[in-house]
Amino acid sequence: MVKQFEGSLLAKALGDELRAKIKDVCRAVLERATPSEPERQRTLEFSRRLAESLRLELLREGLDADVQIEGSVAKDTWLAEEKDIDIFVLLPAEYGKDVFSRVLEAAKRISGEKYLEAYAEHPYLEAYIDGFTVNFVPCFKVKDAVEAKSSVDRTPFHTLYVKSRLNEQVKNEIRLLKAFMHGIGVYGAEIKVGGFSGYLCELLTLYYGSFLNVLEAAAKWRKGEVIDIEGYYKIPDEARRIFRDEPLIVIDPVDRNRNVASAVRVDRLCEFILASRLFLKRPDIRFFYPETTKAYKVDELLRAINSRGSALVFIKTRAIKAVPDILWGQLYRSQRAIKNLIEQFDFEVIRSDVWSDEKSTVIFVFEVHSRFLPALERHVGPPIEKVDDCERFLSKHLVSEQVLSGPRIEGDRLIVERRRRYTDVVSLLRDKLKDGGRNLGVASLVSKALADSLEILVNEEIMGFYSSNGDFAIFLTNYLRGKPSWLI
Amino acid sequence: MVKQFEGSLLAKALGDELRAKIKDVCRAVLERATPSEPERQRTLEFSRRLAESLRLELLREGLDADVQIEGSVAKDTWLAEEKDIDIFVLLPAEYGKDVFSRVLEAAKRISGEKYLEAYAEHPYLEAYIDGFTVNFVPCFKVKDAVEAKSSVDRTPFHTLYVKSRLNEQVKNEIRLLKAFMHGIGVYGAEIKVGGFSGYLCELLTLYYGSFLNVLEAAAKWRKGEVIDIEGYYKIPDEARRIFRDEPLIVIDPVDRNRNVASAVRVDRLCEFILASRLFLKRPDIRFFYPETTKAYKVDELLRAINSRGSALVFIKTRAIKAVPDILWGQLYRSQRAIKNLIEQFDFEVIRSDVWSDEKSTVIFVFEVHSRFLPALERHVGPPIEKVDDCERFLSKHLVSEQVLSGPRIEGDRLIVERRRRYTDVVSLLRDKLKDGGRNLGVASLVSKALADSLEILVNEEIMGFYSSNGDFAIFLTNYLRGKPSWLI
Repeated sequence: MVKQFEGSLLAKALGDELRAKIKDVCRAVLERATPSEPERQRTLEFSRRLAESLRLELLREGLDADVQIEGSVAKDTWLAEEKDIDIFVLLPAEYGKDVFSRVLEAAKRISGEKYLEAYAEHPYLEAYIDGFTVNFVPCFKVKDAVEAKSSVDRTPFHTLYVKSRLNEQVKNEIRLLKAFMHGIGVYGAEIKVGGFSGYLCELLTLYYGSFLNVLEAAAKWRKGEVIDIEGYYKIPDEARRIFRDEPLIVIDPVDRNRNVASAVRVDRLCEFILASRLFLKRPDIRFFYPETTKAYKVDELLRAINSRGSALVFIKTRAIKAVPDILWGQLYRSQRAIKNLIEQFDFEVIRSDVWSDEKSTVIFVFEVHSRFLPALERHVGPPIEKVDDCERFLSKHLVSEQVLSGPRIEGDRLIVERRRRYTDVVSLLRDKLKDGGRNLGVASLVSKALADSLEILVNEEIMGFYSSNGDFAIFLTNYLRGKPSWLI
Repeated sequence: MVKQFEGSLLAKALGDELRAKIKDVCRAVLERATPSEPERQRTLEFSRRLAESLRLELLREGLDADVQIEGSVAKDTWLAEEKDIDIFVLLPAEYGKDVFSRVLEAAKRISGEKYLEAYAEHPYLEAYIDGFTVNFVPCFKVKDAVEAKSSVDRTPFHTLYVKSRLNEQVKNEIRLLKAFMHGIGVYGAEIKVGGFSGYLCELLTLYYGSFLNVLEAAAKWRKGEVIDIEGYYKIPDEARRIFRDEPLIVIDPVDRNRNVASAVRVDRLCEFILASRLFLKRPDIRFFYPETTKAYKVDELLRAINSRGSALVFIKTRAIKAVPDILWGQLYRSQRAIKNLIEQFDFEVIRSDVWSDEKSTVIFVFEVHSRFLPALERHVGPPIEKVDDCERFLSKHLVSEQVLSGPRIEGDRLIVERRRRYTDVVSLLRDKLKDGGRNLGVASLVSKALADSLEILVNEEIMGFYSSNGDFAIFLTNYLRGKPSWLI
């Protein structure tokens, strides 16, 4: 790594002191991020043994299947202490989808007691064995990635592609990039994060040649950046037309029709860009290993809330039982729906967020300008040119008890000021969410949870739960600070 | 009138009962709106005598001038009890503008004690004699209206054009239209009103043939309606290109480059359109002669204010000495400037208005959602792609005492929540207007008045002045009702 960096264009542009500082930081990070030889051996042996056991089980079942280790373990690019193992079961395409359940049953037999059955495009099994999280993923064997029927069918091709281009030096560069992304909170394609997958980190490193080259490039990325490693498209705009509006476009080297970065949300992309710029100016190990947040003490929390003068509205429900991608997909969708509801009734949302421990509780936060709005609201009617609409508007509002003043003309439109339906955002939410708010766009599982365990708290009313849940306390402290830890 | 109405297309479309009702209303209106024979004689004789006196005075001065009666008295189209007389002094174009003062001096000599010297495009004298308001207007004699150097030079041509097309029937129709416009509050081209001039009423009646035909047509007008009596333009769009964005375009028959309706504001136009539609459906003499508003009693006023839940902010100053067109031009301009100021600091203006008795007091009303805003405000920074702007934003906000949370990324932008400069709209206004607010766009005379007599009152604090000034009480009552009297 260090050698490559010294030869890069970037290095020449940087001052000696800064160069030395970056070298030091990267060296320290690599020491922490590279698995020790004992860890490597243990992880590899454990993975091979599991794969072998599953192979035997499937043989006993009379299934014609290849069992392969995939993911970062297969490529030797995992970060120290990462305990994720992916074991894929490649099945002939002639088999129907019902074979999946037989594979999962076999996987259960070798997994012990602790596992979750989950479902993305295919069903899969997430098992917790000896401190590892092991994903058993059945998929179909295809001749070419382009023929893949689901994204997991494509995974073996990704592994082959990356492995054939690796060497020890590149593995270090990949680990630096993954650790950086992890440290600034943009690592992981899961819905909760909406960031960069391990495969994407590997491709970026291969494409740009080194960790620092990736950062140097990212510092200059623009929205709709196109990275086409195998040169499938003549010009970037050709790719942009296909992957319209995606903030980052990285063409999959094994399938020109896929954007490897399709999970990357614009916030995460911009955070990576900004963090890259800042790291290159002020290198610091905290980008990789941030200090853990110390939650506010209760009196600090009260002061922080009061100094804002806004209203923090917490919507609390029981937990939702679903694998994380389903859970967070539903939470984010519901957050948007509730935000729309609040804004539709004229309350101004300053910010919103959602927290869940994935086990017992979900809490949405909506921060509004003010819990209360004045009794009256402007209601703008039709333009005077719409004769029938005006007639209807007048016959409705000339006699309405709800009208406080008007109707009258303003500009070219009819207008009234009428009594506002909801002057208290809490009444609004209680009313509209008591049956789950399904028709407002709240996602199904969240809607059920709201219907049977809705609780609405404002500002200091959250104190009880805050004091009882350390993870939520950290979440709310971070919310109130509103600043990423790496922004220093 | 009645005959003409019976023959119109409209009449055929209306039911018998409605037709009879409209006839009755119009008959009753004409009885009130047509000056009695004694009033006519007195007005005409008085005008002629004044003109004669002035002619003699000017002769004595050695000035070569024609003295003419203009306006509705000249055309015999004034409304009963209207006491406005226009006396024009036509001077040869060779004279310079300094001759105007000699004309005004002569006018003063025949006017007695009560008069105001005023200035529009030219200086003129407004005198109050024997219960009449007499405008003495010097202007230049030109061969053709197109050569007019100011709008008053064009007036004699307007008088000639209308007079040559009048008969007794048409005079009745004109009086009906003027009385209707007056009753619904859209009569008068002065800046305070922004409505339809007498000349415009006359032209509309001549063009459409009758009062009811005007209403029937207006009911279907659209914004940018073009009325080209003499057919100067091939297609309406040709006229629209010249009088861009004017809501109503009536080409002056004596000058194709003038829009007679240029003073008509879009609110007034739409009020006329809507009132026309309503009158044709539900004819009522109240369109012409509305009931006078009875001001709220003090306890009713308090209830009306409280039921709104908003904050009515009154900005009160001493009077401004200027003729009405200057005064109202400055008041409206200042109202817009102050509204912009309030909105710029994030207070939401529901409605605003301005009142003046033109003698002692000016009061601006700004109704805002809430007098107070939360301590914190969102401050949206540059998009991440603007590298230098981001750098500046960060270096400013990372250390600022005013930042309550952030900076962070939201979407593709940097953002902070910071302490709001003004949380009380009253402090904002006091601060920004104490020196008159000239740099904010407040007009010069208003700015001076604010600088030496600014008073800011909220809600019930207006009670003292309300109780002491009947005209303001009616204004505020009308404001709170917010409904034109003819909207029934």
